[in-house]
Amino acid sequence: MTSSDTPENATDAPDAHAEHTGVAARDWATASTDPQYRAAVVDLLGALAYGELAAFERLAEDAKLAPTLEDKAELAKMASAEFHHFERLRDRLAEIGEEPTSAMEPFVAAYDGFHKQTAPSDWLEGLVKAYVGDSIASDFYREVAARLDSDTRGLVLAVLDDTGHAGFAVERVRSAIDADPRVGGRLALWARRLMGEALSQSQRVVADRDALSTMLVGGVADGFDLAEVGKMFSRITEAHTKRMAALGLAA
Amino acid sequence: MTSSDTPENATDAPDAHAEHTGVAARDWATASTDPQYRAAVVDLLGALAYGELAAFERLAEDAKLAPTLEDKAELAKMASAEFHHFERLRDRLAEIGEEPTSAMEPFVAAYDGFHKQTAPSDWLEGLVKAYVGDSIASDFYREVAARLDSDTRGLVLAVLDDTGHAGFAVERVRSAIDADPRVGGRLALWARRLMGEALSQSQRVVADRDALSTMLVGGVADGFDLAEVGKMFSRITEAHTKRMAALGLAA
Repeated sequence: MTSSDTPENATDAPDAHAEHTGVAARDWATASTDPQYRAAVVDLLGALAYGELAAFERLAEDAKLAPTLEDKAELAKMASAEFHHFERLRDRLAEIGEEPTSAMEPFVAAYDGFHKQTAPSDWLEGLVKAYVGDSIASDFYREVAARLDSDTRGLVLAVLDDTGHAGFAVERVRSAIDADPRVGGRLALWARRLMGEALSQSQRVVADRDALSTMLVGGVADGFDLAEVGKMFSRITEAHTKRMAALGLAA
Repeated sequence: MTSSDTPENATDAPDAHAEHTGVAARDWATASTDPQYRAAVVDLLGALAYGELAAFERLAEDAKLAPTLEDKAELAKMASAEFHHFERLRDRLAEIGEEPTSAMEPFVAAYDGFHKQTAPSDWLEGLVKAYVGDSIASDFYREVAARLDSDTRGLVLAVLDDTGHAGFAVERVRSAIDADPRVGGRLALWARRLMGEALSQSQRVVADRDALSTMLVGGVADGFDLAEVGKMFSRITEAHTKRMAALGLAA
Protein backbone atom coordinates (compact mmCIF):
# COMPACT_ATOMS: atom_id res chain seq x y z
CA MET A 1 0.00 0.00 0.00
CA THR A 2 1.53 3.29 -1.06
CA SER A 3 0.87 6.52 0.76
CA SER A 4 -1.05 7.87 -2.20
CA ASP A 5 -3.88 5.43 -1.71
CA THR A 6 -3.96 5.63 2.08
CA PRO A 7 -7.40 6.98 2.89
CA GLU A 8 -6.12 8.59 6.12
CA ASN A 9 -4.29 11.12 3.98
CA ALA A 10 -7.54 12.60 2.77
CA THR A 11 -8.37 15.80 4.61
CA ASP A 12 -11.14 16.96 2.28
CA ALA A 13 -14.60 15.53 2.45
CA PRO A 14 -14.39 12.12 0.76
CA ASP A 15 -16.15 13.00 -2.46
CA ALA A 16 -15.39 16.71 -2.62
CA HIS A 17 -13.77 16.17 -6.01
CA ALA A 18 -15.95 13.34 -7.22
CA GLU A 19 -18.63 13.49 -9.88
CA HIS A 20 -22.11 13.58 -8.45
CA THR A 21 -23.50 10.06 -8.34
CA GLY A 22 -26.40 8.37 -6.62
CA VAL A 23 -28.78 10.76 -4.92
CA ALA A 24 -26.50 13.70 -5.69
CA ALA A 25 -27.23 13.25 -9.40
CA ARG A 26 -30.97 13.57 -8.79
CA ASP A 27 -33.20 16.53 -8.01
CA TRP A 28 -35.52 16.79 -5.02
CA ALA A 29 -38.60 15.63 -6.91
CA THR A 30 -37.06 12.29 -7.81
CA ALA A 31 -34.84 11.83 -4.75
CA SER A 32 -37.64 12.53 -2.28
CA THR A 33 -39.73 9.62 -3.50
CA ASP A 34 -37.52 7.55 -1.19
CA PRO A 35 -39.17 8.09 2.21
CA GLN A 36 -35.94 7.49 4.12
CA TYR A 37 -34.11 10.08 2.06
CA ARG A 38 -36.96 12.49 2.50
CA ALA A 39 -36.94 11.99 6.28
CA ALA A 40 -33.18 12.58 6.35
CA VAL A 41 -33.46 15.87 4.45
CA VAL A 42 -36.30 17.09 6.68
CA ASP A 43 -34.09 16.29 9.68
CA LEU A 44 -31.15 18.05 8.10
CA LEU A 45 -33.11 21.20 7.23
CA GLY A 46 -34.73 21.22 10.68
CA ALA A 47 -31.35 20.83 12.38
CA LEU A 48 -29.74 23.55 10.27
CA ALA A 49 -32.73 25.90 10.70
CA TYR A 50 -32.78 25.66 14.47
CA GLY A 51 -29.00 25.93 14.53
CA GLU A 52 -29.21 29.25 12.69
CA LEU A 53 -31.95 30.56 14.97
CA ALA A 54 -29.99 29.56 18.07
CA ALA A 55 -26.84 31.13 16.59
CA PHE A 56 -28.79 34.33 15.98
CA GLU A 57 -29.81 34.45 19.61
CA ARG A 58 -26.38 33.77 20.99
CA LEU A 59 -24.58 36.22 18.71
CA ALA A 60 -27.10 38.91 19.58
CA GLU A 61 -26.52 38.13 23.23
CA ASP A 62 -22.75 38.25 22.78
CA ALA A 63 -23.05 41.63 21.05
CA LYS A 64 -23.74 43.02 24.51
CA LEU A 65 -20.17 42.16 25.50
CA ALA A 66 -18.69 44.22 22.66
CA PRO A 67 -16.14 46.80 23.80
CA THR A 68 -17.04 49.33 21.08
CA LEU A 69 -20.08 50.26 19.03
CA GLU A 70 -18.32 49.06 15.84
CA ASP A 71 -17.72 45.67 17.41
CA LYS A 72 -21.30 45.51 18.61
CA ALA A 73 -22.54 46.33 15.10
CA GLU A 74 -20.29 43.65 13.62
CA LEU A 75 -21.68 40.94 15.88
CA ALA A 76 -25.22 42.17 15.28
CA LYS A 77 -24.51 41.82 11.54
CA MET A 78 -23.40 38.23 11.99
CA ALA A 79 -26.54 37.56 14.03
CA SER A 80 -28.73 39.09 11.37
CA ALA A 81 -27.05 37.00 8.65
CA GLU A 82 -27.78 33.86 10.67
CA PHE A 83 -31.39 34.91 10.94
CA HIS A 84 -31.64 35.20 7.16
CA HIS A 85 -30.20 31.71 6.79
CA PHE A 86 -32.82 30.53 9.21
CA GLU A 87 -35.54 32.12 7.07
CA ARG A 88 -34.34 30.35 3.92
CA LEU A 89 -34.20 26.97 5.60
CA ARG A 90 -37.57 27.42 7.29
CA ASP A 91 -39.15 28.55 4.01
CA ARG A 92 -37.72 25.52 2.25
CA LEU A 93 -39.26 23.22 4.85
CA ALA A 94 -42.64 24.88 4.29
CA GLU A 95 -42.14 24.62 0.52
CA ILE A 96 -41.70 20.86 0.66
CA GLY A 97 -44.83 20.58 2.81
CA GLU A 98 -43.24 20.17 6.22
CA GLU A 99 -44.14 22.02 9.38
CA PRO A 100 -40.89 23.89 10.20
CA THR A 101 -41.44 23.78 13.96
CA SER A 102 -41.93 20.01 13.99
CA ALA A 103 -38.81 19.59 11.90
CA MET A 104 -36.77 21.75 14.28
CA GLU A 105 -38.07 20.40 17.60
CA PRO A 106 -35.91 17.24 17.70
CA PHE A 107 -32.75 19.39 17.64
CA VAL A 108 -33.67 22.07 20.15
CA ALA A 109 -32.25 20.22 23.15
CA ALA A 110 -28.87 19.61 21.50
CA TYR A 111 -28.33 23.21 20.42
CA ASP A 112 -29.70 24.71 23.61
CA GLY A 113 -27.50 22.31 25.57
CA PHE A 114 -24.48 23.36 23.56
CA HIS A 115 -25.12 27.07 24.06
CA LYS A 116 -25.93 26.65 27.73
CA GLN A 117 -22.64 24.84 28.32
CA THR A 118 -20.66 27.39 26.34
CA ALA A 119 -21.90 30.83 27.38
CA PRO A 120 -18.90 33.11 26.78
CA SER A 121 -17.71 34.99 29.83
CA ASP A 122 -16.22 37.85 27.85
CA TRP A 123 -15.99 39.43 24.43
CA LEU A 124 -13.00 37.39 23.19
CA GLU A 125 -14.59 34.10 24.20
CA GLY A 126 -17.68 35.23 22.30
CA LEU A 127 -15.61 35.97 19.20
CA VAL A 128 -13.76 32.65 19.35
CA LYS A 129 -17.10 30.89 19.73
CA ALA A 130 -18.58 32.76 16.76
CA TYR A 131 -15.53 31.87 14.66
CA VAL A 132 -15.36 28.24 15.74
CA GLY A 133 -19.12 27.84 15.31
CA ASP A 134 -19.12 29.43 11.87
CA SER A 135 -16.17 27.31 10.74
CA ILE A 136 -17.52 24.02 12.03
CA ALA A 137 -20.87 24.80 10.45
CA SER A 138 -19.14 25.48 7.12
CA ASP A 139 -17.18 22.25 7.34
CA PHE A 140 -20.30 20.34 8.15
CA TYR A 141 -22.26 21.94 5.30
CA ARG A 142 -19.49 21.01 2.87
CA GLU A 143 -19.39 17.43 4.15
CA VAL A 144 -23.07 17.03 3.75
CA ALA A 145 -23.61 18.94 0.49
CA ALA A 146 -22.07 16.21 -1.65
CA ARG A 147 -24.61 13.70 -0.35
CA LEU A 148 -27.68 15.76 -1.21
CA ASP A 149 -29.97 16.00 -4.21
CA SER A 150 -29.22 18.98 -6.45
CA ASP A 151 -32.01 21.24 -5.09
CA THR A 152 -31.20 20.69 -1.42
CA ARG A 153 -27.49 20.96 -2.20
CA GLY A 154 -28.05 24.35 -3.85
CA LEU A 155 -29.77 25.66 -0.74
CA VAL A 156 -27.16 24.31 1.67
CA LEU A 157 -24.31 25.77 -0.40
CA ALA A 158 -26.11 29.13 -0.68
CA VAL A 159 -26.50 29.32 3.08
CA LEU A 160 -22.84 28.34 3.46
CA ASP A 161 -21.70 30.85 0.86
CA ASP A 162 -23.25 33.67 2.80
CA THR A 163 -21.35 33.07 6.06
CA GLY A 164 -17.73 34.17 6.33
CA HIS A 165 -17.62 36.83 8.96
CA ALA A 166 -14.63 34.86 10.18
CA GLY A 167 -12.14 37.51 9.14
CA PHE A 168 -13.42 39.96 11.71
CA ALA A 169 -13.15 37.49 14.59
CA VAL A 170 -9.70 36.30 13.50
CA GLU A 171 -8.36 39.83 13.30
CA ARG A 172 -9.69 40.81 16.74
CA VAL A 173 -8.48 37.62 18.44
CA ARG A 174 -5.01 37.91 16.90
CA SER A 175 -4.61 41.50 18.09
CA ALA A 176 -5.66 40.52 21.59
CA ILE A 177 -3.08 37.71 21.69
CA ASP A 178 -0.40 40.03 20.31
CA ALA A 179 -1.20 42.54 23.03
CA ASP A 180 -1.17 39.93 25.79
CA PRO A 181 0.14 36.45 24.90
CA ARG A 182 -1.38 34.91 28.06
CA VAL A 183 -4.79 35.48 26.47
CA GLY A 184 -3.83 32.79 23.94
CA GLY A 185 -3.61 30.07 26.58
CA ARG A 186 -6.99 30.86 28.02
CA LEU A 187 -8.66 31.03 24.59
CA ALA A 188 -7.02 27.78 23.49
CA LEU A 189 -8.64 26.00 26.44
CA TRP A 190 -11.91 27.68 25.59
CA ALA A 191 -11.76 26.56 21.94
CA ARG A 192 -11.06 23.01 23.06
CA ARG A 193 -14.07 23.11 25.35
CA LEU A 194 -16.24 24.42 22.50
CA MET A 195 -15.16 21.60 20.22
CA GLY A 196 -15.72 19.02 22.95
CA GLU A 197 -19.24 20.25 23.59
CA ALA A 198 -20.03 20.45 19.88
CA LEU A 199 -18.88 16.86 19.36
CA SER A 200 -20.75 15.58 22.38
CA GLN A 201 -24.00 17.22 21.27
CA SER A 202 -23.51 16.02 17.68
CA GLN A 203 -22.97 12.46 18.81
CA ARG A 204 -26.21 12.67 20.73
CA VAL A 205 -28.01 13.77 17.55
CA VAL A 206 -26.33 11.07 15.48
CA ALA A 207 -27.44 8.44 17.97
CA ASP A 208 -31.03 9.73 17.98
CA ARG A 209 -31.68 10.38 14.32
CA ASP A 210 -31.06 7.30 12.24
CA ALA A 211 -32.17 8.59 8.84
CA LEU A 212 -30.03 11.71 9.14
CA SER A 213 -26.96 9.81 10.36
CA THR A 214 -27.26 7.27 7.60
CA MET A 215 -27.39 9.98 4.96
CA LEU A 216 -24.44 11.83 6.48
CA VAL A 217 -22.20 8.81 6.15
CA GLY A 218 -22.75 8.06 2.53
CA GLY A 219 -26.31 7.97 1.38
CA VAL A 220 -29.16 5.77 2.43
CA ALA A 221 -28.44 3.19 -0.25
CA ASP A 222 -25.07 2.35 1.25
CA GLY A 223 -26.32 1.50 4.72
CA PHE A 224 -25.24 2.86 8.08
CA ASP A 225 -21.54 2.78 8.88
CA LEU A 226 -20.47 3.95 12.31
CA ALA A 227 -16.81 4.07 11.31
CA GLU A 228 -17.71 6.58 8.61
CA VAL A 229 -19.38 8.87 11.18
CA GLY A 230 -16.19 8.72 13.20
CA LYS A 231 -14.15 9.70 10.16
CA MET A 232 -16.38 12.66 9.44
CA PHE A 233 -15.94 13.87 13.02
CA SER A 234 -12.18 13.36 12.67
CA ARG A 235 -12.00 15.46 9.52
CA ILE A 236 -13.96 18.28 11.16
CA THR A 237 -11.83 18.13 14.31
CA GLU A 238 -8.64 18.15 12.26
CA ALA A 239 -9.72 21.21 10.28
CA HIS A 240 -10.61 22.89 13.58
CA THR A 241 -7.16 22.14 15.00
CA LYS A 242 -5.49 23.67 11.96
CA ARG A 243 -7.61 26.79 12.18
CA MET A 244 -6.88 27.22 15.87
CA ALA A 245 -3.14 26.89 15.21
CA ALA A 246 -3.40 29.54 12.47
CA LEU A 247 -5.14 31.78 14.99
CA GLY A 248 -2.26 31.38 17.43
CA LEU A 249 -4.14 28.95 19.66
CA ALA A 250 -2.80 25.49 20.37
CA ALA A 251 -5.92 23.34 19.99
CA MET B 1 -61.46 82.30 17.90
CA THR B 2 -63.43 79.46 16.43
CA SER B 3 -62.67 75.86 17.19
CA SER B 4 -61.45 75.31 13.63
CA ASP B 5 -58.42 77.51 14.16
CA THR B 6 -57.59 76.28 17.65
CA PRO B 7 -54.21 74.62 17.29
CA GLU B 8 -54.91 72.28 20.22
CA ASN B 9 -57.36 70.46 17.99
CA ALA B 10 -54.59 69.23 15.75
CA THR B 11 -53.63 65.64 16.46
CA ASP B 12 -51.47 65.11 13.36
CA ALA B 13 -47.95 66.42 13.17
CA PRO B 14 -48.34 70.15 12.55
CA ASP B 15 -47.31 70.22 8.92
CA ALA B 16 -48.21 66.69 7.91
CA HIS B 17 -50.46 68.09 5.21
CA ALA B 18 -48.47 71.20 4.40
CA GLU B 19 -46.41 71.86 1.29
CA HIS B 20 -42.72 71.46 1.89
CA THR B 21 -41.25 74.83 2.69
CA GLY B 22 -38.00 76.06 4.21
CA VAL B 23 -35.41 73.35 4.67
CA ALA B 24 -37.89 70.68 3.59
CA ALA B 25 -37.89 72.14 0.08
CA ARG B 26 -34.12 71.76 -0.18
CA ASP B 27 -31.85 68.76 -0.70
CA TRP B 28 -29.01 67.76 1.59
CA ALA B 29 -26.32 69.48 -0.46
CA THR B 30 -27.91 72.90 -0.08
CA ALA B 31 -29.48 72.43 3.37
CA SER B 32 -26.26 71.15 4.96
CA THR B 33 -24.37 74.34 4.20
CA ASP B 34 -26.05 75.64 7.38
CA PRO B 35 -23.78 74.23 10.11
CA GLN B 36 -26.54 74.19 12.72
CA TYR B 37 -28.83 72.21 10.42
CA ARG B 38 -26.01 69.85 9.60
CA ALA B 39 -25.28 69.28 13.30
CA ALA B 40 -28.96 68.61 13.94
CA VAL B 41 -29.16 65.98 11.19
CA VAL B 42 -25.97 64.28 12.39
CA ASP B 43 -27.52 64.16 15.88
CA LEU B 44 -30.76 62.81 14.48
CA LEU B 45 -29.10 60.08 12.40
CA GLY B 46 -26.85 59.18 15.32
CA ALA B 47 -29.82 58.97 17.70
CA LEU B 48 -31.87 56.88 15.28
CA ALA B 49 -28.94 54.60 14.43
CA TYR B 50 -28.13 53.79 18.03
CA GLY B 51 -31.84 53.42 18.76
CA GLU B 52 -32.08 50.75 16.08
CA LEU B 53 -28.99 48.94 17.30
CA ALA B 54 -30.27 49.00 20.89
CA ALA B 55 -33.70 47.80 19.68
CA PHE B 56 -32.01 44.95 17.84
CA GLU B 57 -30.27 43.87 21.02
CA ARG B 58 -33.36 44.04 23.18
CA LEU B 59 -35.64 42.27 20.71
CA ALA B 60 -33.08 39.52 20.28
CA GLU B 61 -32.89 39.23 24.04
CA ASP B 62 -36.70 39.14 24.33
CA ALA B 63 -36.83 36.39 21.70
CA LYS B 64 -35.51 34.11 24.43
CA LEU B 65 -38.79 34.57 26.32
CA ALA B 66 -40.87 33.34 23.37
CA PRO B 67 -43.21 30.47 24.24
CA THR B 68 -42.92 28.82 20.80
CA LEU B 69 -40.40 28.56 17.99
CA GLU B 70 -42.71 30.55 15.69
CA ASP B 71 -42.88 33.37 18.22
CA LYS B 72 -39.14 33.27 18.67
CA ALA B 73 -38.65 33.51 14.91
CA GLU B 74 -41.07 36.42 14.72
CA LEU B 75 -39.17 38.43 17.33
CA ALA B 76 -35.86 37.52 15.70
CA LYS B 77 -37.29 38.86 12.43
CA MET B 78 -38.18 42.17 14.08
CA ALA B 79 -34.68 42.34 15.56
CA SER B 80 -33.11 41.66 12.19
CA ALA B 81 -35.24 44.37 10.55
CA GLU B 82 -34.03 46.85 13.18
CA PHE B 83 -30.48 45.86 12.41
CA HIS B 84 -30.98 46.64 8.72
CA HIS B 85 -32.37 50.05 9.66
CA PHE B 86 -29.27 50.59 11.73
CA GLU B 87 -27.09 49.72 8.73
CA ARG B 88 -28.82 52.25 6.50
CA LEU B 89 -28.54 55.03 9.06
CA ARG B 90 -24.92 54.22 9.84
CA ASP B 91 -24.05 54.08 6.13
CA ARG B 92 -25.69 57.44 5.62
CA LEU B 93 -23.59 58.96 8.39
CA ALA B 94 -20.46 57.63 6.72
CA GLU B 95 -21.67 58.89 3.34
CA ILE B 96 -21.96 62.46 4.63
CA GLY B 97 -18.47 62.21 6.08
CA GLU B 98 -19.34 61.63 9.74
CA GLU B 99 -17.88 59.00 12.01
CA PRO B 100 -20.96 56.89 12.90
CA THR B 101 -19.70 55.98 16.36
CA SER B 102 -19.10 59.60 17.35
CA ALA B 103 -22.56 60.49 16.11
CA MET B 104 -24.15 57.70 18.15
CA GLU B 105 -22.18 58.13 21.38
CA PRO B 106 -24.20 61.07 22.79
CA PHE B 107 -27.36 58.94 22.76
CA VAL B 108 -26.04 55.69 24.18
CA ALA B 109 -26.79 56.60 27.81
CA ALA B 110 -30.41 57.57 27.11
CA TYR B 111 -31.25 54.38 25.19
CA ASP B 112 -29.33 52.10 27.50
CA GLY B 113 -31.03 53.79 30.43
CA PHE B 114 -34.42 53.24 28.88
CA HIS B 115 -33.80 49.57 28.16
CA LYS B 116 -32.27 48.97 31.57
CA GLN B 117 -35.32 50.47 33.28
CA THR B 118 -37.73 48.52 31.12
CA ALA B 119 -36.41 44.97 30.88
CA PRO B 120 -39.55 42.85 30.28
CA SER B 121 -40.16 40.18 32.88
CA ASP B 122 -42.09 37.94 30.51
CA TRP B 123 -43.03 37.36 26.90
CA LEU B 124 -46.15 39.58 26.89
CA GLU B 125 -44.29 42.50 28.44
CA GLY B 126 -41.67 42.04 25.74
CA LEU B 127 -44.34 42.12 23.02
CA VAL B 128 -46.02 45.22 24.45
CA LYS B 129 -42.64 46.88 24.63
CA ALA B 130 -41.84 45.98 21.01
CA TYR B 131 -45.20 47.31 19.90
CA VAL B 132 -45.03 50.50 21.96
CA GLY B 133 -41.43 51.10 20.93
CA ASP B 134 -42.16 50.54 17.26
CA SER B 135 -45.20 52.81 17.37
CA ILE B 136 -43.52 55.65 19.23
CA ALA B 137 -40.57 55.43 16.86
CA SER B 138 -42.95 55.65 13.88
CA ASP B 139 -44.73 58.65 15.38
CA PHE B 140 -41.45 60.33 16.04
CA TYR B 141 -40.13 59.64 12.53
CA ARG B 142 -43.29 61.12 11.06
CA GLU B 143 -43.04 64.22 13.25
CA VAL B 144 -39.48 64.79 12.26
CA ALA B 145 -39.67 63.86 8.56
CA ALA B 146 -41.50 67.03 7.59
CA ARG B 147 -38.68 69.15 9.00
CA LEU B 148 -35.92 67.49 7.02
CA ASP B 149 -34.27 68.14 3.70
CA SER B 150 -35.53 65.89 0.90
CA ASP B 151 -32.60 63.42 1.00
CA THR B 152 -32.66 62.90 4.77
CA ARG B 153 -36.46 62.76 4.71
CA GLY B 154 -36.34 59.99 2.11
CA LEU B 155 -34.08 57.91 4.31
CA VAL B 156 -36.12 58.48 7.47
CA LEU B 157 -39.36 57.55 5.69
CA ALA B 158 -37.75 54.48 4.14
CA VAL B 159 -36.65 53.27 7.55
CA LEU B 160 -40.13 53.99 8.90
CA ASP B 161 -41.82 52.26 6.00
CA ASP B 162 -40.02 49.07 6.76
CA THR B 163 -41.22 48.74 10.35
CA GLY B 164 -44.73 47.48 11.01
CA HIS B 165 -44.40 44.20 12.76
CA ALA B 166 -47.05 45.69 15.05
CA GLY B 167 -49.79 43.34 13.83
CA PHE B 168 -48.09 40.31 15.30
CA ALA B 169 -47.71 41.89 18.76
CA VAL B 170 -51.27 43.23 18.76
CA GLU B 171 -52.73 39.86 17.85
CA ARG B 172 -50.76 38.00 20.54
CA VAL B 173 -51.53 40.55 23.28
CA ARG B 174 -55.26 40.61 22.43
CA SER B 175 -55.50 36.83 22.62
CA ALA B 176 -53.76 36.82 25.99
CA ILE B 177 -56.18 39.41 27.37
CA ASP B 178 -59.15 37.50 25.96
CA ALA B 179 -57.90 34.36 27.66
CA ASP B 180 -57.31 36.10 31.00
CA PRO B 181 -58.66 39.65 31.38
CA ARG B 182 -56.50 40.27 34.47
CA VAL B 183 -53.50 40.29 32.14
CA GLY B 184 -54.87 43.55 30.69
CA GLY B 185 -54.48 45.44 33.98
CA ARG B 186 -50.91 44.36 34.43
CA LEU B 187 -49.95 45.18 30.84
CA ALA B 188 -51.68 48.58 31.04
CA LEU B 189 -49.45 49.50 33.98
CA TRP B 190 -46.46 48.22 32.08
CA ALA B 191 -47.29 50.31 28.98
CA ARG B 192 -47.65 53.38 31.17
CA ARG B 193 -44.26 52.74 32.67
CA LEU B 194 -42.73 52.32 29.20
CA MET B 195 -44.15 55.63 28.06
CA GLY B 196 -43.00 57.37 31.23
CA GLU B 197 -39.45 56.09 30.80
CA ALA B 198 -39.41 56.96 27.09
CA LEU B 199 -40.52 60.52 27.84
CA SER B 200 -38.07 60.95 30.65
CA GLN B 201 -35.14 59.78 28.50
CA SER B 202 -36.30 61.91 25.55
CA GLN B 203 -36.51 64.99 27.70
CA ARG B 204 -32.96 64.36 28.82
CA VAL B 205 -31.86 64.21 25.17
CA VAL B 206 -33.83 67.33 24.30
CA ALA B 207 -32.18 69.20 27.15
CA ASP B 208 -28.70 68.08 26.09
CA ARG B 209 -28.80 68.47 22.34
CA ASP B 210 -29.73 71.99 21.34
CA ALA B 211 -29.36 71.71 17.59
CA LEU B 212 -31.48 68.56 17.43
CA SER B 213 -34.19 69.95 19.72
CA THR B 214 -34.39 73.17 17.78
CA MET B 215 -34.84 71.32 14.51
CA LEU B 216 -37.47 69.02 16.00
CA VAL B 217 -39.69 71.92 16.96
CA GLY B 218 -39.85 73.68 13.64
CA GLY B 219 -36.58 74.18 11.88
CA VAL B 220 -33.53 76.09 12.91
CA ALA B 221 -34.69 79.28 11.20
CA ASP B 222 -37.67 79.56 13.53
CA GLY B 223 -35.74 79.48 16.78
CA PHE B 224 -36.13 77.21 19.75
CA ASP B 225 -39.58 77.00 21.32
CA LEU B 226 -39.98 74.90 24.43
CA ALA B 227 -43.77 74.98 24.20
CA GLU B 228 -43.50 73.33 20.79
CA VAL B 229 -41.41 70.46 22.23
CA GLY B 230 -44.13 69.99 24.82
CA LYS B 231 -46.78 69.82 22.10
CA MET B 232 -44.82 67.24 20.17
CA PHE B 233 -44.57 65.07 23.28
CA SER B 234 -48.31 65.56 23.84
CA ARG B 235 -49.17 64.42 20.33
CA ILE B 236 -47.01 61.31 20.70
CA THR B 237 -48.48 60.52 24.13
CA GLU B 238 -52.02 60.99 22.83
CA ALA B 239 -51.43 58.63 19.91
CA HIS B 240 -49.97 56.11 22.37
CA THR B 241 -53.06 56.36 24.60
CA LYS B 242 -55.35 55.69 21.64
CA ARG B 243 -53.30 52.68 20.56
CA MET B 244 -53.30 51.23 24.05
CA ALA B 245 -57.08 51.64 24.27
CA ALA B 246 -57.45 49.87 20.92
CA LEU B 247 -55.33 47.07 22.29
CA GLY B 248 -57.64 46.69 25.28
CA LEU B 249 -55.28 48.44 27.68
CA ALA B 250 -56.34 51.54 29.58
CA ALA B 251 -53.29 53.79 29.20
